[in-house]
Amino acid sequence: MSNKLMDAVTDSLSLSDAMAAAAAEIDQALDVVLPPEDGPEAPLYAAMRYAAIGGGKRLRGFLVLEGARQFGVSRQAALRVAAAIEMVHAYSLVHDDLPAMDNDDLRRGKPTVHKAWDEATAILAGDSLLTHAFTVLGEDDTHPDPAVRIELVRCLSRAAGPRGMCGGQMLDMLAEQAGAPLDEPAIGRLQTLKTGKLIEFSAEAGAILGKAHSAQRHALLAYGRDLGAAFQIADDVLDATATAEQTGKATGKDAAAGKATLVGLLGLERARLQAERLVAQAKDHLDGFGERAELLRMLADFVIARRS
Amino acid sequence: MSNKLMDAVTDSLSLSDAMAAAAAEIDQALDVVLPPEDGPEAPLYAAMRYAAIGGGKRLRGFLVLEGARQFGVSRQAALRVAAAIEMVHAYSLVHDDLPAMDNDDLRRGKPTVHKAWDEATAILAGDSLLTHAFTVLGEDDTHPDPAVRIELVRCLSRAAGPRGMCGGQMLDMLAEQAGAPLDEPAIGRLQTLKTGKLIEFSAEAGAILGKAHSAQRHALLAYGRDLGAAFQIADDVLDATATAEQTGKATGKDAAAGKATLVGLLGLERARLQAERLVAQAKDHLDGFGERAELLRMLADFVIARRS
Repeated sequence: MSNKLMDAVTDSLSLSDAMAAAAAEIDQALDVVLPPEDGPEAPLYAAMRYAAIGGGKRLRGFLVLEGARQFGVSRQAALRVAAAIEMVHAYSLVHDDLPAMDNDDLRRGKPTVHKAWDEATAILAGDSLLTHAFTVLGEDDTHPDPAVRIELVRCLSRAAGPRGMCGGQMLDMLAEQAGAPLDEPAIGRLQTLKTGKLIEFSAEAGAILGKAHSAQRHALLAYGRDLGAAFQIADDVLDATATAEQTGKATGKDAAAGKATLVGLLGLERARLQAERLVAQAKDHLDGFGERAELLRMLADFVIARRS
Repeated sequence: MSNKLMDAVTDSLSLSDAMAAAAAEIDQALDVVLPPEDGPEAPLYAAMRYAAIGGGKRLRGFLVLEGARQFGVSRQAALRVAAAIEMVHAYSLVHDDLPAMDNDDLRRGKPTVHKAWDEATAILAGDSLLTHAFTVLGEDDTHPDPAVRIELVRCLSRAAGPRGMCGGQMLDMLAEQAGAPLDEPAIGRLQTLKTGKLIEFSAEAGAILGKAHSAQRHALLAYGRDLGAAFQIADDVLDATATAEQTGKATGKDAAAGKATLVGLLGLERARLQAERLVAQAKDHLDGFGERAELLRMLADFVIARRS
């Protein structure tokens, strides 16, 4: 392990505390904004809660909270936006795991929603999480200024929609069906759309909430872009090298499915170097921010040092 | 046929012209707001367009346009909202038709999206239409006032989400799985959520766009509620009595699937009477509106007089 990575692991002790605390807060926020398991529709609400609460690193939510903290945004507002983004992320996992898509049985160490319930419930729970995220953003509690709330809606829907996450998932499926390996630009496009746009928006959201001026908003967005790209490479590296026990989901699936990843194209070492370059670049975007952005800098190191 | 129904059929000649013209305008608006079939994601965009453009009566879109006309709202604004709601309606059909849900091969006289493409594309096209609807509502062109745009987002997402359409679809599935007949209140709840809320919002949306005062907004909402309930009964009557050729979709499926409908519970004649009562009630809500609301009154008669 390089000195740089050693430092990152040391730093990540305080980072991981901060992330764990944020994850707990986000779970509380999700518990408040999601429908309680009451009434005749209760099985749907149970599946939504199962998919959204109590799992994952909450990378996207943490980015919202830390971005918002740069501008002194109220914690309640930031947590609602973090919860909305995590709902969108959770919906995408529920649908991606479906038999017609990636056909995964295991997610975050638990049976996937279509395994714990059935396919129809999983489709509906995903649809519901996606739709409910916009209800949460739309409500007054998220921000007193309607212009801020609608800007969040516009940016989140773009990041998640046909020119964002959904488009990326389509490219992923098409690449698998074609069976021919993608080149580097095509893999870059796929990953930018599939995971990059939502991570980018997560970093940007705090600036929107804080009505930051455009240079600051753009700096956070650029940070999120590089962080997201590094994160994706690290994810692919983990899929290639870790066990299911470590990650809480099926691993080695990319290679088995002939999936297009940079690791497959460049090999492990060159992919890792590229991720390190991206992390350095991500941190450079935070130069205009002070001490308060320290957790965001540490997070950049963490995404490629993590082991699960 | 009663005199009342005869009158409705005569009136519906001008209504059907107005509806056909509105449907054409809505298709044009959808063509503008949906992503063009370009780039590597083109198959996704093609499936979205196939699902959303060129089919159906556009009842929901027509309600938006006519509601907006009561308050002199710009046609462009009303058409964008009509397009957004029709995208949400189209997404719900694409997902409901999936093998894991209603397993339909035919919709609006064409193969369903999972038949014309595959299941994964259908899931993604549905997700994309839903998400893109919020992008359209979020953009400045929909209304200059962000408070109006976010109110549309809030109300649409509630109507379509876990306490609206998704919740209703869940109840429908649970009723089928249970195999036991629902009672009248339970059927009412199912239909209110599954189709009622979105129709209600379609009628209300014009008042939101027009910043109508709350009595007018509520009158349109109440009109939409009764109209939606009547429409649902008429739909069930058609399913029980019409042919697939007439409706452009599979019929007789409710009875075959043991689905919970008022027709099944009350019989055809009592169900028809209830629909007529609802139509009269819907028109009463328009008493405060003048000549301009005439098409909305005719529409109420039309929904139970239609034969496809």
